[in-house]
Amino acid sequence: MAIRTYEQYKQSLKEMRPNVYKFGELVNDVTTHPATKRTVEGHGQIYKLQNDPEFRDLMTTHSNLVNEPVSRYLSIIQSSEDQIANSRMKRLMFQKTGTCTGGRCAGWTALNAMWATTFDMDADLGTDYHKRFVEWLKSAQRRDITISGALTDPKGDRTKAPHQQDDPDMNLRMIELRDNGIVVRGAKVMICGVAAANEIFILPGSAYREEDKAYSISFVVPKDIDGLTIVETRHINDDREVDEGSGWDVPVSEGGITQAYLFFEDVFVPMERVFMCGEWKYTMSTIMNFILPYRSAIGGCVAGQGDIKIGSALLTSRANGLADKVFSEKITQMAINNETTFAVGIAAAALGKKHRSGVWQPDPLLANVNKVHVATLPYETSRLAQDIAGGIGETGCMPSSTDFNDPKYGHLIQKYMKAAKSAESRVKAARMVEWSTAGAGVPGCMHGGGSPDGARMFVRKFYDSDKSVDMAKRLARIEEEMPDPGRKPKS
Amino acid sequence: MAIRTYEQYKQSLKEMRPNVYKFGELVNDVTTHPATKRTVEGHGQIYKLQNDPEFRDLMTTHSNLVNEPVSRYLSIIQSSEDQIANSRMKRLMFQKTGTCTGGRCAGWTALNAMWATTFDMDADLGTDYHKRFVEWLKSAQRRDITISGALTDPKGDRTKAPHQQDDPDMNLRMIELRDNGIVVRGAKVMICGVAAANEIFILPGSAYREEDKAYSISFVVPKDIDGLTIVETRHINDDREVDEGSGWDVPVSEGGITQAYLFFEDVFVPMERVFMCGEWKYTMSTIMNFILPYRSAIGGCVAGQGDIKIGSALLTSRANGLADKVFSEKITQMAINNETTFAVGIAAAALGKKHRSGVWQPDPLLANVNKVHVATLPYETSRLAQDIAGGIGETGCMPSSTDFNDPKYGHLIQKYMKAAKSAESRVKAARMVEWSTAGAGVPGCMHGGGSPDGARMFVRKFYDSDKSVDMAKRLARIEEEMPDPGRKPKS
Amino acid sequence: MAIRTYEQYKQSLKEMRPNVYKFGELVNDVTTHPATKRTVEGHGQIYKLQNDPEFRDLMTTHSNLVNEPVSRYLSIIQSSEDQIANSRMKRLMFQKTGTCTGGRCAGWTALNAMWATTFDMDADLGTDYHKRFVEWLKSAQRRDITISGALTDPKGDRTKAPHQQDDPDMNLRMIELRDNGIVVRGAKVMICGVAAANEIFILPGSAYREEDKAYSISFVVPKDIDGLTIVETRHINDDREVDEGSGWDVPVSEGGITQAYLFFEDVFVPMERVFMCGEWKYTMSTIMNFILPYRSAIGGCVAGQGDIKIGSALLTSRANGLADKVFSEKITQMAINNETTFAVGIAAAALGKKHRSGVWQPDPLLANVNKVHVATLPYETSRLAQDIAGGIGETGCMPSSTDFNDPKYGHLIQKYMKAAKSAESRVKAARMVEWSTAGAGVPGCMHGGGSPDGARMFVRKFYDSDKSVDMAKRLARIEEEMPDPGRKPKS
Amino acid sequence: MAIRTYEQYKQSLKEMRPNVYKFGELVNDVTTHPATKRTVEGHGQIYKLQNDPEFRDLMTTHSNLVNEPVSRYLSIIQSSEDQIANSRMKRLMFQKTGTCTGGRCAGWTALNAMWATTFDMDADLGTDYHKRFVEWLKSAQRRDITISGALTDPKGDRTKAPHQQDDPDMNLRMIELRDNGIVVRGAKVMICGVAAANEIFILPGSAYREEDKAYSISFVVPKDIDGLTIVETRHINDDREVDEGSGWDVPVSEGGITQAYLFFEDVFVPMERVFMCGEWKYTMSTIMNFILPYRSAIGGCVAGQGDIKIGSALLTSRANGLADKVFSEKITQMAINNETTFAVGIAAAALGKKHRSGVWQPDPLLANVNKVHVATLPYETSRLAQDIAGGIGETGCMPSSTDFNDPKYGHLIQKYMKAAKSAESRVKAARMVEWSTAGAGVPGCMHGGGSPDGARMFVRKFYDSDKSVDMAKRLARIEEEMPDPGRKPKS
Repeated sequence: MAIRTYEQYKQSLKEMRPNVYKFGELVNDVTTHPATKRTVEGHGQIYKLQNDPEFRDLMTTHSNLVNEPVSRYLSIIQSSEDQIANSRMKRLMFQKTGTCTGGRCAGWTALNAMWATTFDMDADLGTDYHKRFVEWLKSAQRRDITISGALTDPKGDRTKAPHQQDDPDMNLRMIELRDNGIVVRGAKVMICGVAAANEIFILPGSAYREEDKAYSISFVVPKDIDGLTIVETRHINDDREVDEGSGWDVPVSEGGITQAYLFFEDVFVPMERVFMCGEWKYTMSTIMNFILPYRSAIGGCVAGQGDIKIGSALLTSRANGLADKVFSEKITQMAINNETTFAVGIAAAALGKKHRSGVWQPDPLLANVNKVHVATLPYETSRLAQDIAGGIGETGCMPSSTDFNDPKYGHLIQKYMKAAKSAESRVKAARMVEWSTAGAGVPGCMHGGGSPDGARMFVRKFYDSDKSVDMAKRLARIEEEMPDPGRKPKS
Repeated sequence: MAIRTYEQYKQSLKEMRPNVYKFGELVNDVTTHPATKRTVEGHGQIYKLQNDPEFRDLMTTHSNLVNEPVSRYLSIIQSSEDQIANSRMKRLMFQKTGTCTGGRCAGWTALNAMWATTFDMDADLGTDYHKRFVEWLKSAQRRDITISGALTDPKGDRTKAPHQQDDPDMNLRMIELRDNGIVVRGAKVMICGVAAANEIFILPGSAYREEDKAYSISFVVPKDIDGLTIVETRHINDDREVDEGSGWDVPVSEGGITQAYLFFEDVFVPMERVFMCGEWKYTMSTIMNFILPYRSAIGGCVAGQGDIKIGSALLTSRANGLADKVFSEKITQMAINNETTFAVGIAAAALGKKHRSGVWQPDPLLANVNKVHVATLPYETSRLAQDIAGGIGETGCMPSSTDFNDPKYGHLIQKYMKAAKSAESRVKAARMVEWSTAGAGVPGCMHGGGSPDGARMFVRKFYDSDKSVDMAKRLARIEEEMPDPGRKPKS
Repeated sequence: MAIRTYEQYKQSLKEMRPNVYKFGELVNDVTTHPATKRTVEGHGQIYKLQNDPEFRDLMTTHSNLVNEPVSRYLSIIQSSEDQIANSRMKRLMFQKTGTCTGGRCAGWTALNAMWATTFDMDADLGTDYHKRFVEWLKSAQRRDITISGALTDPKGDRTKAPHQQDDPDMNLRMIELRDNGIVVRGAKVMICGVAAANEIFILPGSAYREEDKAYSISFVVPKDIDGLTIVETRHINDDREVDEGSGWDVPVSEGGITQAYLFFEDVFVPMERVFMCGEWKYTMSTIMNFILPYRSAIGGCVAGQGDIKIGSALLTSRANGLADKVFSEKITQMAINNETTFAVGIAAAALGKKHRSGVWQPDPLLANVNKVHVATLPYETSRLAQDIAGGIGETGCMPSSTDFNDPKYGHLIQKYMKAAKSAESRVKAARMVEWSTAGAGVPGCMHGGGSPDGARMFVRKFYDSDKSVDMAKRLARIEEEMPDPGRKPKS
Repeated sequence: MAIRTYEQYKQSLKEMRPNVYKFGELVNDVTTHPATKRTVEGHGQIYKLQNDPEFRDLMTTHSNLVNEPVSRYLSIIQSSEDQIANSRMKRLMFQKTGTCTGGRCAGWTALNAMWATTFDMDADLGTDYHKRFVEWLKSAQRRDITISGALTDPKGDRTKAPHQQDDPDMNLRMIELRDNGIVVRGAKVMICGVAAANEIFILPGSAYREEDKAYSISFVVPKDIDGLTIVETRHINDDREVDEGSGWDVPVSEGGITQAYLFFEDVFVPMERVFMCGEWKYTMSTIMNFILPYRSAIGGCVAGQGDIKIGSALLTSRANGLADKVFSEKITQMAINNETTFAVGIAAAALGKKHRSGVWQPDPLLANVNKVHVATLPYETSRLAQDIAGGIGETGCMPSSTDFNDPKYGHLIQKYMKAAKSAESRVKAARMVEWSTAGAGVPGCMHGGGSPDGARMFVRKFYDSDKSVDMAKRLARIEEEMPDPGRKPKS
């Protein structure tokens, strides 16, 4: 049975070796530790929803590999409908958790990328990566595990290639190739949702040249593999999360983000879990295979969070006694922003193409256009949410819940926080605005999945401006040759 | 044979009764008169392309009604693929003509709208509108005619309903119902591409109430029907078009827009061409049936024109000797604008639904989001094109082609207009920038198909903010009821 | 001697009665308690700078009242030069502290507002408010005190006037008028810099009508007056501030914001400190007298913080090894944003007018235009800073300083955080980006000094569109009368 | 008497040698020829206003050179008040003419630039340029002449310096130096208001190096000097202007722009009118001396035109029966745009400095920030004007005035153009929107006075980002040196 329950999922996390640290402390149980439990609950909702008749069709899909329903997060995306469902599901999960369930989407995207890349390598090079990969994927589907994905390397000096760095470990690398596996050293950084994951899927962090062959590696490991140390990063207001007395100052209990630094100290990975191992020529296409679905679907993510921003802002204004229609222009603009990122991703899906391996790949131009919008529009949406909510939403400018309940002066806060609705509802609503626009719920979508400048570069690359020049030239009846003066003539 | 040739199309226009006026003069032959010939040539390209193997699949589709290929512009849109092809075809036509071939798209959209509305009326009311309509459509497909669509009424005082106007003719109305037809009086204004059309499809201009029953009419007439007088409007630089000496100051010969005022002086329309006749309850859905495909596909239109703006701007900068890469940021932003309107329309198509009549209807929220983008993004694209092109592109700041060729001082202009490319190519390129961003090629897309404020109103309506409030409320664990204070409680 | 030293200032705070609370705890000494010491240090820099020859001319000015140099923050603004110095000084203080020293600017603005209002009341009503006010101001200048300003009332249900609220205390009010003073009850909320202040200057929070006479009050009290309880609000990442182990996770030690809720439980204010007491007709002009200098100078504030955002972003990119020129476009846009808010404020000052009391009042149209920019442009500047800084700056996505120094795995973090510069410098730089764009340094400038919608309303009011209509009408030679149809004709 | 009347001005133009051409035809009298009379009338209003008591103080100023009042357009700007008056006067002239009176502002700016540059040259080099210049200026003030300014050269291939061009005439150059004067050859292009000018002031078009010494020239000539041929450029809808039957399709009679190409075919300039002649080292400062006042004051220009856009849009909506308040948000945004460009220019003036020659020079950073806004904000203002005005304003989508008055069908147009106001008023109002946002009134402000990219480059240069880095570094307590990796270390 490939569909686990919420309880089974949490139990599987409890059984893992503790190797996650935060604030100088080992997290013994990620499902109960305050630094990690909210993200686990957020991911846990996925397991709840896939067992809920209302959402089952969206959250699961039939797998030909194991011939039963599996989590969509473990499926191969084979059609535009599948990719559209990706956007929809991510929007739903942001609506349900208020934020990112990052321990699934990068992993899912990574496995779709490597489905294509391993297929190509086997076809071109006669390797058996794809076969290994299929076996692992079947097992993953049957176990219904949560898999986070890891690409980003520390990188060191940005002007130097991996092999040119003073410290060769600044990008994750294979330091030894054995018959039965490889040994890797280095780190992956800013990795989402690791605390909530069962396994971690590793991709090369960039497109590499031959000199960086040792960095051209892909594999998957259990999160608690020997030699792997995980340190969670700070995020905004994360102290509130670890302080059990914060009350509703952390307004959301069923959602939360974590991002981790993963340190690989000579970790051995058995060969059946290795999917690239020096084939540097395939790193560029791996990156592209990853970027296309990722940058398309991320528009659904920020749309879903934008929905929550709208909802939170209106809760606050309603608590203040103000009618929704006072803010019609702002809500409309926020809706336009949400739907724009959502829609451009849907369009990228609709105009995609099937890779020879069977994976559906969104349109590269539109996928990258979407990424640019994802890196800008949510900022305006947040600003508008704060505008509607007023000063208490903008920076959460209210006494803490501890003060709210203080026996000496709490009654004063309660008296004066009341408006058209109770003080408690009003404070909770404003904390939701703070949380989703300037607090712990902000998912860092600008650089997630690559920088906006990288996306702009791809937009420029995939937009065929020479074709536009030719069309304009024809229309204007210009007969002279008009090549780009910046392009070297071919000889 | 339902696919006419370019020559057949032009011949059909020549054979019509002249009833189009401009500058106080009757246009005897729209295919040769300088005020109308460019738009005819633009529309003529459609006939060329549907006979061109490269474009045939996009420009035509199989019709079940007549069981042969027909122009896509005369087809019923039955799937998301059909609607996506709509966007693609419109983008192509803007690329081929540099501007709007408005004598087809509103007509096409109107017939798709009335397909659904007549179906609904027949189903609900037992009328036979749909049957009539199908018969007419078969004939239209077989004749492969060009049909412009007309919605906008003069409207008079905007604060009054049609029947409240001092002059009841301010909206087109039925003044007599006969057994065999109706007599109509009034006007439709700002109608695109009438000069290039064979027939004109009329829809009600707004959603009406019972008092405005007489205004709730839809029908189709030959352009040259008795009692119909057509006056073309001015548009930017239209004098250049009628001045045969303008040379390349009108850079485009195979494209051009016209917009006309149509005056109906008690025109008799036979019943087999009447598709609504007093059923005011169906005017609102008619408008929506029109808006959905129209506002989705218009994103393709402005994307296609945006392609031409990019091409024209780069032709100018190349003529100045500058490499394309100097303008990378600007081209990227222009491309993002183009692809955004295109993509949101594609997404509206992909997320659409099938009406019970078989028509595919795009998603109403995304269709209207697209309309808002269409009313804003092309302005930025134009500004950027002018920025790249420099002062000569911004306002076309160059001597006229007459002066360029002047025997006394033309050689001075030619000497000094030369840069990295010939003076002539440079001038033509800059004129293309002027034409497409501030000249006769500007299609008036802001109000075409309704105002941006109307679209914003629909976005607000179709975005379910109460659902967002509920989701945020659940996340924040607010238990109090939080209704919109501006909404009356239901009793 | 009217210019105190840093030490004298801090000593004065130490000597006050403790009445500030946070997290359920009384702050015994605001100069040392971690919740308040940073803002005290920020304000303390003002005292350092006014004794520093480089900055003395900007920070101080000659007072005619006491005939010696006084802090500019205690001076009457008498010329456009004075108002321009206001903008400059605020920009400087943001540059020096990275954030708001809010315990001075609202107080300064309030005393300038009441200088004018008391002058008007005395002139019109024969009261002696201005005389009292002058005496108090002389004393304040001689003592060189820090004065925060308080306007915002809790307000309760936004659709009701103060006297209509269920609880009449929702706006601060006079509950008793005695011969020698008044007794006040209610609260002021979200008040900046109270912890660092010696006194608090109270203004009415809105323009009131006669029914709200009791709410029309202005006075000044020592911060530690009997009956006043102060509760500090949470702000972003404030737990880090109270956690002494946070290290550089709070990157700034000489700056910080606090915002407090002030609860007045029947506080007696002696008459010599009361400057308005029921004169509701003067509440509107009081608000305007406040808004004009405040909304002009706030452009300097956000410009100064924008400078720090640019600096922090470039520190991070330099640490990554990247040349500044990679980000030229972004830095240019950030600079444009900074200079725009700064400049519009300067222009408001330059085009101001002298009130009959001698106070210089900036142009009301430009002051409010500036407020709109202040509520929007800094958001773009923050986004661009995060864009330049990368993922570690966007959400501060790095392990905590505790983890950085952890004996077990700190060395791994240090190894991998290193880039072109040391790990420590890189982390500190990225923390500065986080702090100033998404952390504790964000000053909440959108609603500070009123909402952007309020400012937009004033822009509409002060922009004379009828004059524009008349000019256009003359140019177009329209002879018909063209009044606004929405305006009732005067009878 | 240094203040001429409108009649005297027009008479002075009539007396000049005709050397202006358009459409292959010599303009015999610029005051009556339809291609030039509107710009002459626009400039003529300046002479009317300087004799009007209401405007005299703004339009004139006292000259120390001739010790009497002179036109402000011929004065030396000596204080921030003078520069602020510059902005105000330009805003006024746009309000009075609806567009640019370009025959004065560039000339005025040029003479202020050369006041400083000649002063510097004389001081540094011992030349007597400044003395000559003063003599000429006295004469110009006494004669109260209109002087257009000319900088822009044809430039040829943009990647090559003047001396590297295939044709050395692509930039205006001295081909002979005689004892009593110089002989110049080449062209200046896109020069505003030449038709309305008495003299033309020439500046070098760029900063030059030694190899381009011959291009480093400045002088002033009568417009009708021998060897100078002037060809007017096309602008939008200029055919309407030369067609006497256009009626109100050219809505404005007292304003209009012309831009000309000036061809110098070996023109002799007497030495007393030569102000630079090979001193290439002073070309860079000449450009800067020009840019500073020009880019500051141009914010007033576009603000004035923005006022007319607001007025025209509201005239149209009022004619439609709609209340102004329907468009409050849009009007507010348009006002913000207007006031922003106006204000940033005012601030540049206020923060300026006195050059040693006595000229007041605006702040270079703010002047260039303003230019960027001038190149963008008016586009949004135009879009909003079109949005308010509806389809008839967007592209002027109405029959021509000829058709409006047609004996056969004109009554139909008149019947249906009527709304809440007469058809004629409504059409005129909409034509004003068209004229000012997409027609002949558009002044080409994006590249006037240099490109926006040039301005952005200067913003980057004048914004001291290293200072911002130092401030951030101090705040973050970073101790490592953090230089820009892209900057070569000084050795």
